[in-house]
Amino acid sequence: MVRQRVVLIADLIGTAVFAIEGATAAIHAGLDLLGVLVLSFTVALGGGVIRDLLIGAAPPNALRDWRYPTLAFVAGLATFLLHAQIEAVPLMFMVTLDAAGLALFAVAGAEKAIEFNISSISAILMGAVTGCGGGVIRDVFRARIPMVLNTDIYASAALLGAAVVVAGRRLGFAPSVAAMAGFLACFAVRILAFLLGWHLPRVSGAL
Amino acid sequence: MVRQRVVLIADLIGTAVFAIEGATAAIHAGLDLLGVLVLSFTVALGGGVIRDLLIGAAPPNALRDWRYPTLAFVAGLATFLLHAQIEAVPLMFMVTLDAAGLALFAVAGAEKAIEFNISSISAILMGAVTGCGGGVIRDVFRARIPMVLNTDIYASAALLGAAVVVAGRRLGFAPSVAAMAGFLACFAVRILAFLLGWHLPRVSGAL
Amino acid sequence: MVRQRVVLIADLIGTAVFAIEGATAAIHAGLDLLGVLVLSFTVALGGGVIRDLLIGAAPPNALRDWRYPTLAFVAGLATFLLHAQIEAVPLMFMVTLDAAGLALFAVAGAEKAIEFNISSISAILMGAVTGCGGGVIRDVFRARIPMVLNTDIYASAALLGAAVVVAGRRLGFAPSVAAMAGFLACFAVRILAFLLGWHLPRVSGAL
Repeated sequence: MVRQRVVLIADLIGTAVFAIEGATAAIHAGLDLLGVLVLSFTVALGGGVIRDLLIGAAPPNALRDWRYPTLAFVAGLATFLLHAQIEAVPLMFMVTLDAAGLALFAVAGAEKAIEFNISSISAILMGAVTGCGGGVIRDVFRARIPMVLNTDIYASAALLGAAVVVAGRRLGFAPSVAAMAGFLACFAVRILAFLLGWHLPRVSGAL
Repeated sequence: MVRQRVVLIADLIGTAVFAIEGATAAIHAGLDLLGVLVLSFTVALGGGVIRDLLIGAAPPNALRDWRYPTLAFVAGLATFLLHAQIEAVPLMFMVTLDAAGLALFAVAGAEKAIEFNISSISAILMGAVTGCGGGVIRDVFRARIPMVLNTDIYASAALLGAAVVVAGRRLGFAPSVAAMAGFLACFAVRILAFLLGWHLPRVSGAL
Repeated sequence: MVRQRVVLIADLIGTAVFAIEGATAAIHAGLDLLGVLVLSFTVALGGGVIRDLLIGAAPPNALRDWRYPTLAFVAGLATFLLHAQIEAVPLMFMVTLDAAGLALFAVAGAEKAIEFNISSISAILMGAVTGCGGGVIRDVFRARIPMVLNTDIYASAALLGAAVVVAGRRLGFAPSVAAMAGFLACFAVRILAFLLGWHLPRVSGAL
């Protein structure tokens, strides 16, 4: 009961953080108020919606539970109105919140996927889709190559966190232990990658 | 029975109008005949397909009922063959037909969503997705920022129409009354926005 | 039993070929290792995933059966490591393998769609979606107009192959005969189109 409430609150905070980021991206792309709200919704809830469609859980949770879209729109509207103030928030603070949101979504995505009829490798993928799917739609809507495909350690951190959850469950650890370990793995790697400038390898000179 | 037939005929007209617009966009983007047919299908039926996937009504109606894809392809082929004549149609005539199609799809989308297990706010969103989703895919396929995100009052009109339908139903009005009111609200706002150059606000100087 | 094994092996070969092509496209777009693996998965399995979502077969087969994503990732990783060698493979060899993969996916897609509650015209569309859907996502992720919409006879060959399968079934031929005829129709048209430079018509001077 207490755990459920903690999970719900964490989920709502993650949703709000991602919605603010989506709204900020929309404002930077010169979109109007509707575009800002659409990207708030998309970045905050798009990953979970894709995951739910893929695992066969339609209608997605974000459409069934009115609190999620409402929160995303309120956060987007607040960002629209208070844009100057939000731009003034220190970058490291936003990166930390974003890493926490990513870790949370990756863990929650893998956990939900485990309950459905899919393979372990797919449950790990669903963790990453939950964490990164919204950002991919954001970039497609801005007609850009999705950032997770060529910058930084981001989706990789989500994959790691989801893999820790799936492995922990398989090895018989309690769900809450597996979840906590997955969260910490994703969060730590993401923050370290940001601070230390880690990147994945690429084939050089192939353009 | 009569009402059902009216709805079906209206639905088919809306499908044909949107298919012609999709085909025209494809021709302008220099696509070949296959690209023209794909965009005819996508613009006409893509919104409804996304809605059906999201509310858990797979396979979507557009794939179950052969009349919809057939009509979209026939309209697309006709546009391909008669492109010069269709370009000569007065803009205001096309805008009026498009506004009617948008209003119709928004109302129909909200109505169908209400029947499924989703929240009121999501039913309103589904109305807008039905009306605008096809155009979003069209723009993604042309590698452009979706027009509805930064131009004009378009998706907003669809949201308004869908909101009127949902509110009307909640307040106990007969479904046909709620549908008619929603249609008129969306249609009127869209036409007025076009004629009077209404736009949504945006954050200035944020680029 | 023997036929099932043949189909499975053919399916896995098609998956590997498409994954190698996806990885190569990602390397050419300058993506990092994660981007290479994502495009390997997407190009190899994206079409089948979209088809399964559309026909109401969620979770898609590619997420249920661990062999498909594993194979796609292994093929992608091998392409990343052996990129220089793969670039040295003669073009005609890759085109032939790709045409075989396309034909196989188009036939398999139409066959699976027939089993679900959709119209014949939609079953044909599902064949093309299975064959070409992965490539469309690849191009959207690279922020380009999907190649199948304006180059060459490619999706058209898939549509033809799928149409042969659907028509063959309708006319009472044995499933294996219909499948073989559909495969040959798609493969032959694709190879001939490549060798002879066939293109679909487009409206000239419409830009």
